[in-house]
Amino acid sequence: MDATATPTRERILYATAELFRRHGYSGTGLKQVVAQAHAPFGSLYHHFPGGKQQLADEVIRAGGAFFEALVMAAYDEETTAQASVRAVFEGAAATLVATDFEDACPIAVIALEVASTNDALRRATAEIFEQWTAALTDRLGDRRLALAVISAVEGAFVLCRAQRSVEPMLAAGSMAAAYVRDD
Amino acid sequence: MDATATPTRERILYATAELFRRHGYSGTGLKQVVAQAHAPFGSLYHHFPGGKQQLADEVIRAGGAFFEALVMAAYDEETTAQASVRAVFEGAAATLVATDFEDACPIAVIALEVASTNDALRRATAEIFEQWTAALTDRLGDRRLALAVISAVEGAFVLCRAQRSVEPMLAAGSMAAAYVRDD
Repeated sequence: MDATATPTRERILYATAELFRRHGYSGTGLKQVVAQAHAPFGSLYHHFPGGKQQLADEVIRAGGAFFEALVMAAYDEETTAQASVRAVFEGAAATLVATDFEDACPIAVIALEVASTNDALRRATAEIFEQWTAALTDRLGDRRLALAVISAVEGAFVLCRAQRSVEPMLAAGSMAAAYVRDD
Repeated sequence: MDATATPTRERILYATAELFRRHGYSGTGLKQVVAQAHAPFGSLYHHFPGGKQQLADEVIRAGGAFFEALVMAAYDEETTAQASVRAVFEGAAATLVATDFEDACPIAVIALEVASTNDALRRATAEIFEQWTAALTDRLGDRRLALAVISAVEGAFVLCRAQRSVEPMLAAGSMAAAYVRDD
């Protein structure tokens, strides 16, 4: 793919999303963003006059929607709640392996970085988690169940990336599937 | 307490731990560390010749050991595995409320920040997660169960801090307690 065939605005967003996932919000500089996006520096403030804060807000929302679509597609391929929940954890494990443990939750790093320091971005991450919770509550019929399953996926991502192993994701998936079956 | 009565080395470690928890690894500068520790700048490299990397390594290990002692003390106060697991999640929820959602897992932010960018620090976080897993496996008699429970706590911390609510922690705790009962 010729990266420069993509419109500049999208290239900047995509590069930012990747840099945030790997280096975090604080660890990403705008010079890195424009270099990776093959975009002139001026184009960044042309497309994102709010600078890094606006970029982060858009990355959180776009990444959150993309991840939700991906996870819910895996969920909806199965016909029982238990098989669906298991498919979500197995899909997450497969993605971790395929990306050398780089691609996990698109918003968890930034959520933890901004939770106590940037209330506008904190609220953006909270809205995304709330959207995921609503989508899963629709399917499971129980908000508490949905929150528990999402917590298990999120925490397993942290352990799996640190340990470079999918063992925590599969263990968390067994727990979540058992819980869905029981309730 | 007179902060300067504490030895300089410990003041620096303590300040670093607090700054990392709230601003992350990348978001914390060494100037902030010495300012918050009431320490002269030169003392930082005197006590930590390896600079930020060494500081981070020590903070991960000290924070990990402290958190493990805290969590296992809550666990060991109860007499059944189910009550113990519930006590861990309720203790985590109480800490979140008491600290205005600032104090959660001492190593999760840094674990996610360094997972793909700093292998020495990634290994330090993996060793701490492994220590916690071993401590909980001793108590639950099942490594997979221990990994699932730790994943649920870690993920619930992410959601709770973003949402400024303990609802995810209590939901995750119900799931973990039910799973421990069943197995």
